[in-house]
Amino acid sequence: MADQRLTAGPVQLSDAAHSSLRPLPLGATRIEGGFWEQRQRTNREVAIPEGATRLNEAGNYDNLRVAAGTLDGEYRGPVYQDSDIYKWLEAVSWEIGRAPSEQLTEWLREATELISAAQQTDGYLNSYVQTHDQERFADLPFGHELYCAGHLIQAAVASHRATGEPALLDVATRFADYLAATFGPGRLEGVCGHPEIETALVELFRETGNADYLHLAEYFVDARGHRLLRNDHRDSSYFQDRVPLREATTVEGHAVRALYLAAGVTDVYAESGDGTLLAAARRQWQHMVATKTYLTGGVGSRWEGEAFGDPYELPSDVAYCETCAAIASVQWSWRLLLATGEAQYADLIERTLYNAFLPGLSLSGAEFFYVNALQLRSDAAINDSRNPGNGRRPWFSTACCPPNIMRTLSSLDHYLATVDSDGVQLHQYAAGTVRTDQHELHVSTDYPWDGRVEIEIAATPDAEWTLSLRIPAWAEGATLTINGNKQTTEAADYTRVSRDWQVGDRIRLDLPVRPRFTAGDPRIDGVRGAVAIERGPLVYCLEQTDQPANVDDIAFIDEPLTDEERPDLLGGVTVVHASGVVAAKPEDGLPYHRAGAAAAPVAEAITVTAVPYFAWANREIGAMRVWTPIAGPLP
Amino acid sequence: MADQRLTAGPVQLSDAAHSSLRPLPLGATRIEGGFWEQRQRTNREVAIPEGATRLNEAGNYDNLRVAAGTLDGEYRGPVYQDSDIYKWLEAVSWEIGRAPSEQLTEWLREATELISAAQQTDGYLNSYVQTHDQERFADLPFGHELYCAGHLIQAAVASHRATGEPALLDVATRFADYLAATFGPGRLEGVCGHPEIETALVELFRETGNADYLHLAEYFVDARGHRLLRNDHRDSSYFQDRVPLREATTVEGHAVRALYLAAGVTDVYAESGDGTLLAAARRQWQHMVATKTYLTGGVGSRWEGEAFGDPYELPSDVAYCETCAAIASVQWSWRLLLATGEAQYADLIERTLYNAFLPGLSLSGAEFFYVNALQLRSDAAINDSRNPGNGRRPWFSTACCPPNIMRTLSSLDHYLATVDSDGVQLHQYAAGTVRTDQHELHVSTDYPWDGRVEIEIAATPDAEWTLSLRIPAWAEGATLTINGNKQTTEAADYTRVSRDWQVGDRIRLDLPVRPRFTAGDPRIDGVRGAVAIERGPLVYCLEQTDQPANVDDIAFIDEPLTDEERPDLLGGVTVVHASGVVAAKPEDGLPYHRAGAAAAPVAEAITVTAVPYFAWANREIGAMRVWTPIAGPLP
Repeated sequence: MADQRLTAGPVQLSDAAHSSLRPLPLGATRIEGGFWEQRQRTNREVAIPEGATRLNEAGNYDNLRVAAGTLDGEYRGPVYQDSDIYKWLEAVSWEIGRAPSEQLTEWLREATELISAAQQTDGYLNSYVQTHDQERFADLPFGHELYCAGHLIQAAVASHRATGEPALLDVATRFADYLAATFGPGRLEGVCGHPEIETALVELFRETGNADYLHLAEYFVDARGHRLLRNDHRDSSYFQDRVPLREATTVEGHAVRALYLAAGVTDVYAESGDGTLLAAARRQWQHMVATKTYLTGGVGSRWEGEAFGDPYELPSDVAYCETCAAIASVQWSWRLLLATGEAQYADLIERTLYNAFLPGLSLSGAEFFYVNALQLRSDAAINDSRNPGNGRRPWFSTACCPPNIMRTLSSLDHYLATVDSDGVQLHQYAAGTVRTDQHELHVSTDYPWDGRVEIEIAATPDAEWTLSLRIPAWAEGATLTINGNKQTTEAADYTRVSRDWQVGDRIRLDLPVRPRFTAGDPRIDGVRGAVAIERGPLVYCLEQTDQPANVDDIAFIDEPLTDEERPDLLGGVTVVHASGVVAAKPEDGLPYHRAGAAAAPVAEAITVTAVPYFAWANREIGAMRVWTPIAGPLP
Repeated sequence: MADQRLTAGPVQLSDAAHSSLRPLPLGATRIEGGFWEQRQRTNREVAIPEGATRLNEAGNYDNLRVAAGTLDGEYRGPVYQDSDIYKWLEAVSWEIGRAPSEQLTEWLREATELISAAQQTDGYLNSYVQTHDQERFADLPFGHELYCAGHLIQAAVASHRATGEPALLDVATRFADYLAATFGPGRLEGVCGHPEIETALVELFRETGNADYLHLAEYFVDARGHRLLRNDHRDSSYFQDRVPLREATTVEGHAVRALYLAAGVTDVYAESGDGTLLAAARRQWQHMVATKTYLTGGVGSRWEGEAFGDPYELPSDVAYCETCAAIASVQWSWRLLLATGEAQYADLIERTLYNAFLPGLSLSGAEFFYVNALQLRSDAAINDSRNPGNGRRPWFSTACCPPNIMRTLSSLDHYLATVDSDGVQLHQYAAGTVRTDQHELHVSTDYPWDGRVEIEIAATPDAEWTLSLRIPAWAEGATLTINGNKQTTEAADYTRVSRDWQVGDRIRLDLPVRPRFTAGDPRIDGVRGAVAIERGPLVYCLEQTDQPANVDDIAFIDEPLTDEERPDLLGGVTVVHASGVVAAKPEDGLPYHRAGAAAAPVAEAITVTAVPYFAWANREIGAMRVWTPIAGPLP
């Protein structure tokens, strides 16, 4: 694998960018073996080929053919169908960068031809608008034209970075040039109902050096929040158009929109150095984490409007937690991590990747969750294809999540490590290699199942430099050993070791992943009087199939938790056992009683088994819960 | 008042009806003075006149004029605009029955003329369909044509009962005859997306004796649940069209639809004697009460689809609890009470009237809640006119709730008492008179503020009969005194006294209304680890304006509750004081922590003041909560 081309990943800061840390090229950080490689292989071998089939079935390809005039037919599906192809092509591109593949290359070539053919002579491209002879940008709130353009640009940038081929990038720059000539003060003044173009334009600037794209992104960021998105269906907060971004104090409205926008704002900061944008982004992020984030890292609690709720409105049962919102959250946190170097952003990325992003994909790689509830009751009604009670689905009529998962897994290596002038930072732990011009680190670990991370220095500059290793916030009691000598470690954040490293030096980080009970703020109804089980970075849940009683009726007792390796289960997991009680409760009369007057239920002692939340719903679908009431005091 | 005409109320069973109890005419049960008369006066003097203004402003009248061809213009508002006029006319009619009024009579006459003029020659009538030259019943799922017809019929029955005038009833019977000739096996086979016509047709049968209407209601009931309502937007459970009614085990889908239908099903049982319908209705009601009903009696927890949630999905903050659903619940429970004579139905009616229906109306009578959440956070975003954070509104674009409140208050006397062959039953306590052909009871009480209810026998047959007085489920320790002699009372249900009553006999029932803490089933996230305050039939809440600290941060301590009469406050209420603590909590970092490791917050002791929930949001709108976390063990 060492001969892989080094290609810029999803974020490649310009040389002049304002940042604390700098990302490494793909291929320079490389996942090899272990937990995430297993997911990446499934993604490449199952999910992405399935995506090709589904995109053909759903009409996404045909829509482009009809737009190109090479097929007689009618547009099928929602207005944003093009974006699904683009996201899938982004995944295909990163995969080609990871390892050559005739099939992948052929898919990219075919799609690029089709997209080129559909593009209009002035650069505009949108199969819905073109096949409906609709006025361009007549429906900025809901038309998704700039949203689709953003995904085209991201795919084009990925394709160019991974393959060096300019064809798709040419399509994207023609379109972006058209947009730069169309939008702006004194021209068409407006923003897209669904942010996405902002971060894409900044990356296109980084790829091409053309500052017009950065300036257009700046325009879209500045224009937002002035209620340009007039419509009868949604209030302006839905579109993040209620207040100017620099005044925003929280994340609000449609979660994916809010977070793609926030990522774009942070990108604009990085390239413009406008500190008011960074300050606003940091403020919003803090408020999101403190009041609008699930234990899983999932965000966007409301089905209604796929939106952020009010502070502490984090229901487990009707949680929305769209998989795309988790992905967008990772994108945003990554940009803030680059900007600031603060571990809190990497902490949230880890939490989100394992517990809000990964649940979106089945172990088989062929089925997807759109919505990631933290509880499914035994008698839940299932009235919507997105309802978790249906289990993961092969595709959706709005198919944003599946290809979004694919492109994220295909570029996951990007998020592991960074460099700065002092040295190398490891943010996420996975088996593999981290290389720079002068450094090479080999990482061995069975993380997240095991907390031991071993690093060998395989190349080093001939001078003192600092190796920074993130200590996750949950990892109390972490220890660090260098060449067999135990070091004192900082309590949280990064443990930083500055020395004149030698080839062959061995660092061992031990993160205590023993299972633990987690409690929450009583202002959150879903967690008050309840606890969750976590182990290392993983959030656990109770699935009905593992329990001797109805999951809905179980309460925990505060006794030691034990864990057990189960290589046979769910592709190989560590399960956690807990002591519980189950009380038969009546379903008769109102479920309210005079306080203190409840008849003590006859409680039966049981042993409960928890599995990682990401792996739920890969067997028989039944009741599931992350938060479980406690039988006595604990939090 | 004793000279008021006796007029049948909303439900008047046929002579052959299957029932345990029989309703009394309006005027025979009569609220005079006290809590509810105050609301009825506001309704007559403020709400109903406001309704006339709002209906004119919103175009409801003009729509009928355009349909009649007497006005050139365009239809305004949603498809079900006609129904708002009908519900308001029903209120106007009951008010005319309660006491003469030139203005009310003129409104009824004018509207009746307008409606007659809009009716088509074959009896069909719907201003939306007529003004759009749309095919009749082409959109049964969403067209609301039969829904509007049902409200027309209910208004017509009320108008006929209250005034004796046949004009509006003639319109209704012409339409109903048309419907009976149109729908049914071998004719147009279908049901309305929004139930309502079923209960209306049974009442029209009762008023006219024409069995065609009963049979049409039976057809609609039998046809439902066979997925006739095909559409792309909602699954069949939304319309209660997923399973045949006799197989239904729970209430599901849109709450108002589900409950209007359930009332109609119970009506069909009463007139057909089909016990399978009653059994299904009772089963559904039990499951609703045990798993889908808020402490307030409110039902329908989801904004999405205005629908029932899953069992125990009863969030306080995003509760929907539409005011119309509370009204529909009362209608259904009343019909089950008549059918069975069981106190549980009257208990739910009481809880719902005080705590789920009444909050829909401002103390001024001019503003309305559509949605009745049990919690409003201090920093809640307000993005929808229905959001409680906006306070009550003068009207809504979908204005179902305001006139529904009006017609319910205007006919509230109907729900107080019944008769059977053994005697008289008092179900709800209000100052006033209850008369039958042979009995007359004068009831004096300051209920719900005071638990003492005094009844004087003013007329009695010359034979032993039974006076039954409901003991609410909350009223532990109730005592009964007859002519000064204390009686033994049954623990719950009805206390029944059979004797040879004499004119002048005095009965005194003492219901202990002292404030109490109520706990709930820990399966309900919103109530786990929390308590509510109740006093008598009233649910209380904390409003921000009464507290020395942020409502969001308060926790209760288990100490005696005290109450205080406050004639100056909110039109005269009794408030409840409780001991609490308030802890400053950080908004920094994730709101989760290792169980047992939370830093003990610095808790400040405070005194908390609770007001009746029905009266909230009549002052400055701020944070409010019904359920408050507890600082230590209690439930």
